[in-house]
Amino acid sequence: MIILGVDPGTLFCGYGIIRLNKTTPLYIKSGVINLTSEKTLPNKLKVIYDELSLIIRRNKPTEFAIETAFYGKNIQSAMKIGYARGVSLLAAVHNDLEIREYSPREVKKAVVGNGAASKEQVKYMVASTLNLDSDFKKFDESDALSIALCHAFRFKTPSVRNTSWKAFVEAFPERIIK
Amino acid sequence: MIILGVDPGTLFCGYGIIRLNKTTPLYIKSGVINLTSEKTLPNKLKVIYDELSLIIRRNKPTEFAIETAFYGKNIQSAMKIGYARGVSLLAAVHNDLEIREYSPREVKKAVVGNGAASKEQVKYMVASTLNLDSDFKKFDESDALSIALCHAFRFKTPSVRNTSWKAFVEAFPERIIK
Repeated sequence: MIILGVDPGTLFCGYGIIRLNKTTPLYIKSGVINLTSEKTLPNKLKVIYDELSLIIRRNKPTEFAIETAFYGKNIQSAMKIGYARGVSLLAAVHNDLEIREYSPREVKKAVVGNGAASKEQVKYMVASTLNLDSDFKKFDESDALSIALCHAFRFKTPSVRNTSWKAFVEAFPERIIK
Repeated sequence: MIILGVDPGTLFCGYGIIRLNKTTPLYIKSGVINLTSEKTLPNKLKVIYDELSLIIRRNKPTEFAIETAFYGKNIQSAMKIGYARGVSLLAAVHNDLEIREYSPREVKKAVVGNGAASKEQVKYMVASTLNLDSDFKKFDESDALSIALCHAFRFKTPSVRNTSWKAFVEAFPERIIK
């Protein structure tokens, strides 16, 4: 299974591709689409869509992982995230990828083990898990890989919703101190 | 010159096409893309993009007019507008249309003569200007036509920025009571 993780923005758009080999995630490719030289919003959106489509055609992922929308306080940032997320999702759906969304907290929890981890910690754990040197160009790149990794971990361990203590005990017997 | 005006949203996306025949705007086509039956955001975005692309290929507009982003108070609405505007702009730029943005105030001022006009008033004036019966399915449709009309009016009357009283007097001598 090949997974494309994307961290979209209108200045930089990070992407990371991994292959899940049985239960081992392997690094394939990652990078950052630099949009700072594009002067108009329509051109930025075109570059995001066209580059992601090219990356999909070349690397043939079947799964697309993205963070759920982050609702900050700034209206203008929210709209910009909307633009970039929108055309990224469009590239995924136009190429028939399975789309999965994870909250920033879920991603950090899956990769670092701590839902409030810093970007530095995420970068370190992504590099360590994928046996890479930790020289990512930008956090957008390590973040995109962390989203792909989160999907890989979720896929190999079906999530159990701990709606009750009984269900939790059944799902994680090793966590109960006897 | 054929103009496509679009009023994007994630529930309904209005579009309106007019032809500017010398200085007379003529109605070609308008409608609403209904997105309420699409269950996921990626599918909504796909329908907006695919339908607009089809409308562009069939009607061959050269100009694309859209309202400038409206910054309300609600973060979630801002992000939704971002999604819908983003894929609409992408359809325009992928089809090499000239993109022009107008503020809601400019559009109302151009079509009704009052920047604070109601949607009802806009609908009435759009129908009257284009010799139509006023039975638009939704305001999204009349709003999209009003944006196209605003561009047509701007095109036939190059805007003069009244930065000074002298410039205003030169531009509009008939408005000065002697």
